[in-house]
Amino acid sequence: MFDNASKTNLDSLGEIGLIEKLTSSNNIINSNIIKGIGDDAAVFKPTADKIQVISTDLLVENVHFDLMYTPLKHLGYKSVVVAISDILAMNAIPNFITVSVAISSKYTLEAMEDLYAGLYLACEKYRIDLIGGDTSTIPKGMVISMTAVGEVSTEKLVGRNGCKPNDLLCVSGDLGGAYMGYQLMEREKRVFLANPEMQPDLEGFDYIVGRQLKPEARKDIITLLESLDVMPTSMIDISKGLASEVKHLAKASGVGFSIYEEKLPVDSQTIQMAQEFNMDATMCALNGGEDYELLFTISPNDYEKIKNQMDISVIGHATDEQNICKLITPSGNMFDIKAQGWEK
Amino acid sequence: MFDNASKTNLDSLGEIGLIEKLTSSNNIINSNIIKGIGDDAAVFKPTADKIQVISTDLLVENVHFDLMYTPLKHLGYKSVVVAISDILAMNAIPNFITVSVAISSKYTLEAMEDLYAGLYLACEKYRIDLIGGDTSTIPKGMVISMTAVGEVSTEKLVGRNGCKPNDLLCVSGDLGGAYMGYQLMEREKRVFLANPEMQPDLEGFDYIVGRQLKPEARKDIITLLESLDVMPTSMIDISKGLASEVKHLAKASGVGFSIYEEKLPVDSQTIQMAQEFNMDATMCALNGGEDYELLFTISPNDYEKIKNQMDISVIGHATDEQNICKLITPSGNMFDIKAQGWEK
Repeated sequence: MFDNASKTNLDSLGEIGLIEKLTSSNNIINSNIIKGIGDDAAVFKPTADKIQVISTDLLVENVHFDLMYTPLKHLGYKSVVVAISDILAMNAIPNFITVSVAISSKYTLEAMEDLYAGLYLACEKYRIDLIGGDTSTIPKGMVISMTAVGEVSTEKLVGRNGCKPNDLLCVSGDLGGAYMGYQLMEREKRVFLANPEMQPDLEGFDYIVGRQLKPEARKDIITLLESLDVMPTSMIDISKGLASEVKHLAKASGVGFSIYEEKLPVDSQTIQMAQEFNMDATMCALNGGEDYELLFTISPNDYEKIKNQMDISVIGHATDEQNICKLITPSGNMFDIKAQGWEK
Repeated sequence: MFDNASKTNLDSLGEIGLIEKLTSSNNIINSNIIKGIGDDAAVFKPTADKIQVISTDLLVENVHFDLMYTPLKHLGYKSVVVAISDILAMNAIPNFITVSVAISSKYTLEAMEDLYAGLYLACEKYRIDLIGGDTSTIPKGMVISMTAVGEVSTEKLVGRNGCKPNDLLCVSGDLGGAYMGYQLMEREKRVFLANPEMQPDLEGFDYIVGRQLKPEARKDIITLLESLDVMPTSMIDISKGLASEVKHLAKASGVGFSIYEEKLPVDSQTIQMAQEFNMDATMCALNGGEDYELLFTISPNDYEKIKNQMDISVIGHATDEQNICKLITPSGNMFDIKAQGWEK
């Protein structure tokens, strides 16, 4: 996987040397940060009158990512997106992250520098700072642990629990693309493993490959809703899949949902790839996961404010049938939405 | 290692089921917490006029812990201690933690419940709350990622960088015990692996075994120093070993240190075990690590206030010889202190 000739072995650096190398290009942009990397802990001054929001995520090799087809720089970028997406889903603005990495001895300094280049790129894009972390060896593989912290005014905080019957269910962007990108790369990996002479054939599918390898966190949607003066009544980010997330909103808010199949935003590449795999594009949109779009509800009174926003789709509405989530097909048939891990 | 008959397989629960089981006994005690587990992120209200301190640690199976002799409940307890020790080292009071665990399929629900029982026990002892986390499978082993958050008034914050020449170097508790406890358990593990009929012989060494398996974080020392009206000029916790930590203080503060060998606090069990292993007890105290004691400097003017405190030892003083750390033996010989990973 990696050509380690003329690369720097991590053992020769030591932990302190490694941390110094990886953080030498780290420029703190947030003026609230009193101490970044280099003491026992990082220190920050919260903005007066704001509440703090904190979330943590694990990314495990061969569970969450496959280094056969994931460039380390992309993995670093995606790790930040995964972490801050949870902060955005509270309607908060992420300010900084801590990053811990456990890596086996097969990785070189250059590999770690690639990973951190991706982390820093995402930090720059989303205007957040890397203020701390930990590194460790591990007998096998790689584990990344991310913690993100953000802030929001008390009255702007949005949880999963504020949705009322008749509120409109909205989603940003499109769904199922990350999952179909994953399916495509898994197929090409199998082809490559069977015959290493074969080059991967991803042509024409750069969008869905990008959705899987380098997703974006929808900070722009939080800003957009604020500028439209729309305050979501509940919100969650789509990491496990629309089906799972809609059930979380239903459970926390004590409502049900009706979702209209023809309203689901699905990209043409996702549809095409689903056809190639004999899969149902709707099922990919419902259960695919890893799109990191925002799923939220708004009061029906706010419909006029968002109806012309290209990047927001109204896909259904809340009902008073507690915990009952239904998909309604164009022909009017209704199906209960099931989510993996829920019915156990 | 584990008898899994009649135990609950984690796959049968799913992630949501597992989290519900593990957090059902979690009672939030800190009134500043607005949202704990159960939304995209946890939310807390910082105390007005205080600054926030955050730190993160990884604990990796067969790197930081060996489940051959570490009960999972002890591991949970120790994980909290490791995390909050860094917060205390900033002279801050820890308020809450997030815990992420990646576990392979060999672990059962009952094993996870043991781990969390230890986590909750430490939370209760130190009056902190568990407010979030993540769980994941991993192909092999176990990884625990801890993030701790605490707070402190700006004027009470203590970093590594405030020590001046002639300040006194102090340490809480005693040193080298955790390391000798580790050596003892490694020996008994080898005996057991060679002959499973042999029972481990730990008699008479419960103190050093406890130092390794269930260390305490020195929140009591932070409270004591406050009550004595002593503000440390610099501080760090001893995780890697006295030698490594004193070099961190020297580097960050731009000073050197002279440490007097006969002043090093070493327990009699540590000395006895070092003799059994033909090791030098001073080297164990210098390089052992994992004691989670606090190493700090105070102004010479504060000496009278601490001199009768049984749990604080003055072991040396700061000098103006930048980065030069010396050990002075009872006979007056001087040695440069070397720390693993520093000279590379």
